[in-house]
Amino acid sequence: MMPSKPEIVIVGSLAFDDVATPFAARKNALGGSVSFACAAASFFSRCGMVAVAGADFSRASLNKLKRFGIDLSGLKIAKGKTFRWSGVYEKDFNNRRTLSTKLNVFESFRPELPAKYRRSPFLFLANIAPALQAHVMEQVDAPRFVMVDTMDLWINTARSDLLKLIKKVDLLLLNDSEARHLSGAHHLVTAARRLLKLGPRYLIIKKGEHGSMLISRENIFLLPAFPVDNVIDPTGAGDAFAGGFIGYLAARKNLFDSTMRKAGPQALSALRQAMIYGTITASFAVEAFSIDRLSALTPRDVNMRAAEFLRMVKT
Amino acid sequence: MMPSKPEIVIVGSLAFDDVATPFAARKNALGGSVSFACAAASFFSRCGMVAVAGADFSRASLNKLKRFGIDLSGLKIAKGKTFRWSGVYEKDFNNRRTLSTKLNVFESFRPELPAKYRRSPFLFLANIAPALQAHVMEQVDAPRFVMVDTMDLWINTARSDLLKLIKKVDLLLLNDSEARHLSGAHHLVTAARRLLKLGPRYLIIKKGEHGSMLISRENIFLLPAFPVDNVIDPTGAGDAFAGGFIGYLAARKNLFDSTMRKAGPQALSALRQAMIYGTITASFAVEAFSIDRLSALTPRDVNMRAAEFLRMVKT
Repeated sequence: MMPSKPEIVIVGSLAFDDVATPFAARKNALGGSVSFACAAASFFSRCGMVAVAGADFSRASLNKLKRFGIDLSGLKIAKGKTFRWSGVYEKDFNNRRTLSTKLNVFESFRPELPAKYRRSPFLFLANIAPALQAHVMEQVDAPRFVMVDTMDLWINTARSDLLKLIKKVDLLLLNDSEARHLSGAHHLVTAARRLLKLGPRYLIIKKGEHGSMLISRENIFLLPAFPVDNVIDPTGAGDAFAGGFIGYLAARKNLFDSTMRKAGPQALSALRQAMIYGTITASFAVEAFSIDRLSALTPRDVNMRAAEFLRMVKT
Repeated sequence: MMPSKPEIVIVGSLAFDDVATPFAARKNALGGSVSFACAAASFFSRCGMVAVAGADFSRASLNKLKRFGIDLSGLKIAKGKTFRWSGVYEKDFNNRRTLSTKLNVFESFRPELPAKYRRSPFLFLANIAPALQAHVMEQVDAPRFVMVDTMDLWINTARSDLLKLIKKVDLLLLNDSEARHLSGAHHLVTAARRLLKLGPRYLIIKKGEHGSMLISRENIFLLPAFPVDNVIDPTGAGDAFAGGFIGYLAARKNLFDSTMRKAGPQALSALRQAMIYGTITASFAVEAFSIDRLSALTPRDVNMRAAEFLRMVKT
């Protein structure tokens, strides 16, 4: 029997992080974009992970991921060590300084999709080199929805690869400084309009504690962040947002036609709801180091906070 | 015949500003909190201004204010010169540096209300010394709604006066850094909860381009800012927000009981709508120097942008 395909495939980095904030520190925290994104997505839809880890990737870490019901058949364990990142947050979490980056096995990562992933309808290309993101896109059969994240490094060093890729995706996800950097425009609405001309049907600009914007040619949707009282570690918030977003969207996939090109009012409403759920999974992620808070969470917790948030933003 | 009372009384500063931004500069711009607040409020309700200007206050400036239908019987023209402020905005408008402040006639300002203002149901005490704000409060007869703004200077130099005053007001209006400063808490929700314990029924925290929050003991309302593409001068945005807010509220005053202490669901909804209109009048104010953009505006422009904004924030 052919094993069932996951609803979402997420490709990105898997890492061990050493993180210090003004108030606490943690070493060897399970991190990387796929950890946060798959964990968050799993509250809504079944997720397949495409990533690489080293021989030092512990059974405990594997079990943490498995408990979310994540399909790990796309996770490759390679000879060598897992990607390691170390960073420190300054006062008020407004600035993050990277202390060290050791790519290790991630340096020669060449993502290959298990056969059953190729027909998955939703694909999230988290932040890796645009050429690798393109390589993944070539392996999927007519996905309904492809979302791509990137970072300043690729805007600087692989701009033409990135521009070629985003021509073909449905949604480009960036933070505010990346949107300004890639577009060359300071004002976010101007930046967004320029970026939409590069090809994507939708754009999400993440503004951290200040919320997020969803922009299409026809519409702008503005959403504040959920006001988290006790931020422990902002690492992974953007990936947890992305995971919750695409997870919710995949759970409502019947609202979309096969190409997303003709999203009707119901699909637009689903995109807005997906932003809300992404905001909520991100708000939980920052309440602990690593994916610890997401691990302790029930779907009821997610729904309760989403309802609370909806009351806060209802006009 | 007793002249009719204005629906709102606003007391604050009247000034001539010299403003420089990275892109443009203006000298002798009509400014001060009452200019922006009364102009914005006037789109919704009749507003009486309590302020002082010097003998150099030109007829042209008076006419600018009169064209909004502002009642100027509370404006005193004193011997001497009008308050002058000069400041410069740094790149991206994120920091404002004051170059000079000449209080002039404002130094000996002692606000006295014309008799007909004393029964006005809405009162906005814009940013002046807390002792003067208290002096104004003593002159009004049982207003339905008193809103007070302040600044870091008074938190530092007149804290006990300020604390005494805010015990008696319905709504305290602050920006995010002032809320942190006055409460001693970094997280805004924690800050807000502490500030509500000081007495006000409602708190609004203004976050500039990142929107605003309305907090009461029972509720939190989060609203993004309207995304202005072409900011010319952010001076007065907070006052234009406050004016639009209280102007709209005064236009729906029948939703409130005489003390605002038992605001029902309809009143809460009106407060949220008032935040939307405050956001819109502020978004126009920053599109030009001084109150120029507000002067050129029609009620239809305000309503059109409010409708556009509502579509952007609708979940």
